[in-house]
Amino acid sequence: MTGTKIKVLGELPKLNNPVFIEGLPGVGNVGRIAVGYLIEQLEAKKFAELLSSHFMPFVLIHQSSAVHLLKNEFYYWKAKEPGQRDMIFLVGDSQSIDPLGHYEIVETILDFIEKLGVKEMFTTAGLSVEKIEKEPRVIGVVSEPRVVKDYKKFGIDFEAGSKVGTIIGASGLFIGLGANKGMRGVCLLGETASLPEIPDPKSAEAVLNVLTRIFNLKIDMSKLKEKIKEMESFMKKIQSVQARTISQMLAQQMKKPKEKEELRYIG
Amino acid sequence: MTGTKIKVLGELPKLNNPVFIEGLPGVGNVGRIAVGYLIEQLEAKKFAELLSSHFMPFVLIHQSSAVHLLKNEFYYWKAKEPGQRDMIFLVGDSQSIDPLGHYEIVETILDFIEKLGVKEMFTTAGLSVEKIEKEPRVIGVVSEPRVVKDYKKFGIDFEAGSKVGTIIGASGLFIGLGANKGMRGVCLLGETASLPEIPDPKSAEAVLNVLTRIFNLKIDMSKLKEKIKEMESFMKKIQSVQARTISQMLAQQMKKPKEKEELRYIG
Amino acid sequence: MTGTKIKVLGELPKLNNPVFIEGLPGVGNVGRIAVGYLIEQLEAKKFAELLSSHFMPFVLIHQSSAVHLLKNEFYYWKAKEPGQRDMIFLVGDSQSIDPLGHYEIVETILDFIEKLGVKEMFTTAGLSVEKIEKEPRVIGVVSEPRVVKDYKKFGIDFEAGSKVGTIIGASGLFIGLGANKGMRGVCLLGETASLPEIPDPKSAEAVLNVLTRIFNLKIDMSKLKEKIKEMESFMKKIQSVQARTISQMLAQQMKKPKEKEELRYIG
Amino acid sequence: MTGTKIKVLGELPKLNNPVFIEGLPGVGNVGRIAVGYLIEQLEAKKFAELLSSHFMPFVLIHQSSAVHLLKNEFYYWKAKEPGQRDMIFLVGDSQSIDPLGHYEIVETILDFIEKLGVKEMFTTAGLSVEKIEKEPRVIGVVSEPRVVKDYKKFGIDFEAGSKVGTIIGASGLFIGLGANKGMRGVCLLGETASLPEIPDPKSAEAVLNVLTRIFNLKIDMSKLKEKIKEMESFMKKIQSVQARTISQMLAQQMKKPKEKEELRYIG
Repeated sequence: MTGTKIKVLGELPKLNNPVFIEGLPGVGNVGRIAVGYLIEQLEAKKFAELLSSHFMPFVLIHQSSAVHLLKNEFYYWKAKEPGQRDMIFLVGDSQSIDPLGHYEIVETILDFIEKLGVKEMFTTAGLSVEKIEKEPRVIGVVSEPRVVKDYKKFGIDFEAGSKVGTIIGASGLFIGLGANKGMRGVCLLGETASLPEIPDPKSAEAVLNVLTRIFNLKIDMSKLKEKIKEMESFMKKIQSVQARTISQMLAQQMKKPKEKEELRYIG
Repeated sequence: MTGTKIKVLGELPKLNNPVFIEGLPGVGNVGRIAVGYLIEQLEAKKFAELLSSHFMPFVLIHQSSAVHLLKNEFYYWKAKEPGQRDMIFLVGDSQSIDPLGHYEIVETILDFIEKLGVKEMFTTAGLSVEKIEKEPRVIGVVSEPRVVKDYKKFGIDFEAGSKVGTIIGASGLFIGLGANKGMRGVCLLGETASLPEIPDPKSAEAVLNVLTRIFNLKIDMSKLKEKIKEMESFMKKIQSVQARTISQMLAQQMKKPKEKEELRYIG
Repeated sequence: MTGTKIKVLGELPKLNNPVFIEGLPGVGNVGRIAVGYLIEQLEAKKFAELLSSHFMPFVLIHQSSAVHLLKNEFYYWKAKEPGQRDMIFLVGDSQSIDPLGHYEIVETILDFIEKLGVKEMFTTAGLSVEKIEKEPRVIGVVSEPRVVKDYKKFGIDFEAGSKVGTIIGASGLFIGLGANKGMRGVCLLGETASLPEIPDPKSAEAVLNVLTRIFNLKIDMSKLKEKIKEMESFMKKIQSVQARTISQMLAQQMKKPKEKEELRYIG
Repeated sequence: MTGTKIKVLGELPKLNNPVFIEGLPGVGNVGRIAVGYLIEQLEAKKFAELLSSHFMPFVLIHQSSAVHLLKNEFYYWKAKEPGQRDMIFLVGDSQSIDPLGHYEIVETILDFIEKLGVKEMFTTAGLSVEKIEKEPRVIGVVSEPRVVKDYKKFGIDFEAGSKVGTIIGASGLFIGLGANKGMRGVCLLGETASLPEIPDPKSAEAVLNVLTRIFNLKIDMSKLKEKIKEMESFMKKIQSVQARTISQMLAQQMKKPKEKEELRYIG
């Protein structure tokens, strides 16, 4: 496999004007935690997986001794009550490890969800700030200015969004490249004052609260911290191996030849 | 999206022997400023956008809280008076972030403008010098020696051009790869003594003066400095995020594993 | 050649439900040594070679003054007695030198062996540990949990496998990406306390013992150390040149310009 | 342009069993000098050019103020006397700047010359040694052992070739990948004790002497040093810009953000 491939498990779901909700790993794992918890609580169904040669070339080992490839996963959920909508969720183990891969992965996903009827999306991420005043705010940026007025009432701070400057990685590219395909979108940024690699449940909860309000979802929040602990050791493993692999590759590459005879270099 | 794509907005303009004028970011942002200002003053019309996976994978946030993808933009303008010519302008937020991308982006653009009838081009850039004698010179290099005599009279220093040595990035590749397609070209280099990342309005003005003389354009120069200020904060944001992203990626990759148990490495 | 190509030498062998056994270079060269020795002792036949632009761009020089391209090699062997199986072996000089190449090479090989009828595979590698208790254990991880019970009896420690955390490179990706194609697999990890670049015959022998027991093979182990010496100088050459090339490339790239006149940089 | 393209100038020459002679830049520029001089003295005709996105993205400026793209060039020459052969020469400004590009460029060229009827090739390069005894030896390595006996009589040291260890870059890959297409080949390595970036005329002359003896060519050697001086400043320019560009790119990437407000990072 070179590039990025989506494998559908069974049949594609038939969905009615579904909204796309993304939560990939990033600062404080805010998006990953929020969307992962939503999937569990709603008992959303997995229907597709994405693999990419832009993920690190390693497997994780599960408790059962079985290997786990790095991947992104698609889930769907069907509306059950008025005020709810059909939903497609994206969560995963990793984003691209090289700059070019981000564009490829995001566009592959956009082509896929476009066929599933997606015209609107919410992406989620953490936003590093120096300190939190009382509660973490959920800051919003949008695909186009007129989206602001539709979601202002749900406690999203779009004012602060205009001062964010930049969004690096998938959460921003989904909104930007999606807009090019005529999709509306909001990126929800949960403020976090933790170090980027420490999961921040408070920030994830704030993002979750916004999502449940917008889509009229009833979610039991009591298990959030417990779930975070489960996820935490798994995500830590990925990050630490990713770091170690690359530094070992570099160390390997930089080490000096030992044999005199081998010092001859031919161009 | 892997690679580079041009998206035409509406219909392609019908142009009569158009000249192509390029001004992408670079040393002192000389070309970006000069061509950006020309577009504004002539009220040239945008007709296409270019996206590339060789740009940094992030979005900028506008004052309206809406996201902005990094892109290059095409504008056109039709001749209104004798001595003028139809024109296609290229400006943008970024050049390629990796060496291979430069060739891909330049060739994608050359294929596109060839279909629009372009047989001649002017690219613009800054040239770092230690100090400026009185006024910044505009130094020219050409696609082939016989182009020199056609433009010598417009105050371009082609003598100095022969001593420039090299041109790195899009401005040079457009001339070189364009020549391979039978296009004539001049690269206009405005001398600048500022640091590469500081916009140099004086140098941009010198380049603008040459372009307006060649193409018989009447331009109000009085708003140049003001416009530069607007552009400046935007371009600074891009450069600083670009720098930060890469150093954070490297920092992330180089950080050491924390858990003893994880120190085992399998080949 | 961009990418990865397999060249079949003569006709493809007709094999009956063959098992695939991989042993590429890695920690302690455990897999490379074990599978290389098996090939020699069984007098398995070479039938295909793999080249890749993800290997280092150099050739090695043989004792005969003839060049040797870096490659991976496929061998086959047909079962001769009850309790044995037809086998396809993969050994080679190198794994991918960049992260993306691992996925490409492993998938190219999986597509190839799938056509040859492979439904089961064993990959082999070293596992760095701080110290060995008496004998090196052979630790196993699997494509799916139910594989464990089939091979538990052969002295593989699957318990320890669940604590391995991660497997970097081809040995893990084969199991993970193979599972996606419906192939069952076990990765056999021989414990080693040597430095990653020092071949570990003890660990290789432990892995060999497991393989011979599973597949009912009679192998003369007396020449293992001697064979390792032969392989050693060859593998060392590759590793040291690989290291040297990259550090020289970097040194070349980082060296400073010497001429004043050339210090001018054009964007 | 992504990748590597060969552009034929006019019609392809019709050649009788031509031998291919390669001399790209490398250690001491030995090959580049030797083959470049042969082309000049034989007045060989240029018939094709190769461009690649694996060359650095810049243009050089000629004395005439015209730009020069980095490229490789093909020349041909027809045998005029008994004992001579039709020849195809390859020289150029650059080899690939990334490891993957070497394979792509060499294979693109092999496909091209195969169609022109090439079944035999000589590649040329420098070999760094600590000191030269009297005269630089010309050391040979071959595509297959039986090639040795055909060329032993021409003063090539194949004994020493067996101890060379490795050949990095195009000269080695041509022989290795060519052998895979059924082409015979010899790589001629001129010993040099200069620094890798200093052109070594003595070594180039030694290689030239071998080539003229094998192919029964009469060449005036008196202008070799003079020609080297011409080439020298040109090649130096390329090397120094290549180094500068990459170190500036890295410097650019590593520089720290200046504005406090921009320190927020979103994953």
